[in-house]
Amino acid sequence: MNPIHPIDVVLRKRDGHSLRDEEIHAFIRAIVERTPERQLVTDAQIAAFLMAVFLRGLDARELATLTSVMRFSGDTFDATPLKTFTVDKHSTGGVGDKTSLLIAPILAAVGLAAPTLEGIPGICVPMISGRSLGHTGGTLDKLETIPGFNTQLNLQQLAETLKQCGAALIGQTPRIVPADRTLYALRDHTGTVESPFLITASIMSKKLAESLNALVLDVKVGSGAFMPSYEKSKFLAELMVQTGETSGTRTVALLTSMNEPLGRFSGNWIEVWECVDIMQGRRHPVSRDLIELSNILSGWMLHLAGRASTPEEGARLADQILTSGDAYKAWLKIIAAQGGDLSVFENPASHHKPTASRILKASQSGYLASMDCKQVGWAVQRLGAGRAKPGDPVSAHAGIESHVKLGDHIEEGQPLFTLFSEDASLLDEPEQMLQNTLVLTAEPPVIEPLIRETISASGAQP
Amino acid sequence: MNPIHPIDVVLRKRDGHSLRDEEIHAFIRAIVERTPERQLVTDAQIAAFLMAVFLRGLDARELATLTSVMRFSGDTFDATPLKTFTVDKHSTGGVGDKTSLLIAPILAAVGLAAPTLEGIPGICVPMISGRSLGHTGGTLDKLETIPGFNTQLNLQQLAETLKQCGAALIGQTPRIVPADRTLYALRDHTGTVESPFLITASIMSKKLAESLNALVLDVKVGSGAFMPSYEKSKFLAELMVQTGETSGTRTVALLTSMNEPLGRFSGNWIEVWECVDIMQGRRHPVSRDLIELSNILSGWMLHLAGRASTPEEGARLADQILTSGDAYKAWLKIIAAQGGDLSVFENPASHHKPTASRILKASQSGYLASMDCKQVGWAVQRLGAGRAKPGDPVSAHAGIESHVKLGDHIEEGQPLFTLFSEDASLLDEPEQMLQNTLVLTAEPPVIEPLIRETISASGAQP
Repeated sequence: MNPIHPIDVVLRKRDGHSLRDEEIHAFIRAIVERTPERQLVTDAQIAAFLMAVFLRGLDARELATLTSVMRFSGDTFDATPLKTFTVDKHSTGGVGDKTSLLIAPILAAVGLAAPTLEGIPGICVPMISGRSLGHTGGTLDKLETIPGFNTQLNLQQLAETLKQCGAALIGQTPRIVPADRTLYALRDHTGTVESPFLITASIMSKKLAESLNALVLDVKVGSGAFMPSYEKSKFLAELMVQTGETSGTRTVALLTSMNEPLGRFSGNWIEVWECVDIMQGRRHPVSRDLIELSNILSGWMLHLAGRASTPEEGARLADQILTSGDAYKAWLKIIAAQGGDLSVFENPASHHKPTASRILKASQSGYLASMDCKQVGWAVQRLGAGRAKPGDPVSAHAGIESHVKLGDHIEEGQPLFTLFSEDASLLDEPEQMLQNTLVLTAEPPVIEPLIRETISASGAQP
Repeated sequence: MNPIHPIDVVLRKRDGHSLRDEEIHAFIRAIVERTPERQLVTDAQIAAFLMAVFLRGLDARELATLTSVMRFSGDTFDATPLKTFTVDKHSTGGVGDKTSLLIAPILAAVGLAAPTLEGIPGICVPMISGRSLGHTGGTLDKLETIPGFNTQLNLQQLAETLKQCGAALIGQTPRIVPADRTLYALRDHTGTVESPFLITASIMSKKLAESLNALVLDVKVGSGAFMPSYEKSKFLAELMVQTGETSGTRTVALLTSMNEPLGRFSGNWIEVWECVDIMQGRRHPVSRDLIELSNILSGWMLHLAGRASTPEEGARLADQILTSGDAYKAWLKIIAAQGGDLSVFENPASHHKPTASRILKASQSGYLASMDCKQVGWAVQRLGAGRAKPGDPVSAHAGIESHVKLGDHIEEGQPLFTLFSEDASLLDEPEQMLQNTLVLTAEPPVIEPLIRETISASGAQP
């Protein structure tokens, strides 16, 4: 057998061929094994490959192989010794999307309540999350506003935390899917981010490296979604479900509306505060979509884990766990296990310390018909809550509070958003961005449902 | 106006848009102006752009703009002060293709015979040539077997040589079309060489940088051509003609057969020897296709320069100049002006000094029906006459002599090729390659004509 050269793989994809498994394997190995001295494949060759994949696509087998080869390109988390049901959720990213902070404790509470014979929780959620980028927030940035909370666990510590708490909320380690680190940096740099094939391989390789029994995907659609159309979001969801199922992980994707910020707050600490309020039994009316979505996603996870006969029954169980305070107990256990200071949860509102704020009020009356949710996300980022580039610091206290929801009738002068920042000079531009993006109408608008469609191995269901 | 970022140009081409002139300009400027410290555009971004162009193509305006921006990315040769008619020929590369060595002196002889009022030749041929790469030979490598001959003239020396001799045979300078230097190296490295759009921009930017009044293109078709099919060669020819005409240079392309080595010898010194034989009046029967093609290409150049009412009349004039010895006089003048030792032309055969040779004889009788001419070119390269990678040295004396032509009837045991090398160990593999590629048939084969089609601004003519 002659060795496969990366350039030949580029040529084959350029010419529209279906790559053989060995070719995909050789290309990814060259990426992982190259060193500055031994450039088995260059950035330029990887960039040419990414553009060829962007324009030519991948068939189901190629995508499954690419995902699998990337998944095993570095360390993987092996949950087998825990003898538990491992399940996770992944969101394609939204504004005010903090469901992970509710779902992890809900699932952990169920797992803790029904441990295995070895005393390990019956369900474990090894939730490996990301950071804010672009117009979307990041779970790690939110969690790190809790004093002492450590998101940088190694895989041994992850296993220990799962054994003890049933869930862990941690960041990517440099040794999990190192191939994606290289590919993602180059995609971002060469205009090849939005390929549904490359997105699927990137997301699914990292999620499958957690060796999951089941995975629930929250694929956003609407003005705040990364994907530019409903059809493209749906295609991405189908690719991810297919790829997950091929690798033996039960995978379901929900297409959910991201046409306005989810829940009440969008930022960092304020999102933790909102979730703690909910887990402590204080349900603010503006949080209603957040609670609904968290329950539905948890319901699917509980259903796939065999703890509910239907997703709907799972969602009802999730809501009970939120209401009973069991989710909050599990939350405290997780946060404490990862070094977090629990005292901030006693009065979370008191820990919200922006040094500047402003209320945006309605300049006219009418129904709130629509907004460009991506613009709202950028406004949150510009207030200081997000980052312009990887590695930038984020503000713990910047962000916005939504006072109204799409479809609400608004009177002139009524507060729409409160803007928070740690720098008063950062308020003007975001205020203008929010003002410009709101559309009020005289007639009540038609509002899209939160759950648009569910994609599973057995097909799509409305 | 916001500055245009290279990444936005990549995105626009990725998405199939027609790039605006400013975008093409900004992208090429970033390539030329980047430094190791200031990476205005990275190799990875250029590679992504090249792959996007490869797969999306360019429309006529984009291609003309890209060619023009590349042409003016560095120094250009300004022939205006010479007040002469500047004309050149370019070949897409073949085996044994040495027409430049005959065409330059033919045109120079006509130019010298009819000087302008300032005493400058009435036609000037500023022939900037390339080196051997892959299966094809390079004019510079052939010329450099003449002791003392200097191909590295600067643009001032080029102008002086043209004033004196009517032609000059020189190499690319690092300052002519520097953008192509970067783009070509990356194309070679990222599998984006064969795009007709990128080939056109590369060839035409360098040729148009000679500020030509007219250009004749020899676009090879057949088994020895770079392009894989007749249709692709024709498409390339059409793109080049269109691009040349758009920039104000009268441009004609001839699609010519490259199904066997052109003429008698394929190598370096032996190709100079063959041309000197012809210019000295010794016409070897196997050189007949070389003489015919050189005359036809020269005929077109003379026609475009207004020295012949038709290309056919031009070809007859070219043949007369070859026969009369005027071309040889012009040749000696050019070689002397560039420092070459003329004594080697007194008995050129005596300067052919391979240290090893072998005769390949026919193992059966029959008509020589076909060969894979690319394989023949690789055999020449493996004998030492070509290079495996840029910068490698080439052997002056390696190569092959063709004793027969396609369509000839061959008797068993008749010599087909003589192989020459400066290293006896290099004979075996090329011998085998030649043996394997020859097809003999019992019936006389149909041989394609030398000139397949002519493409000009007024369309194709058979």
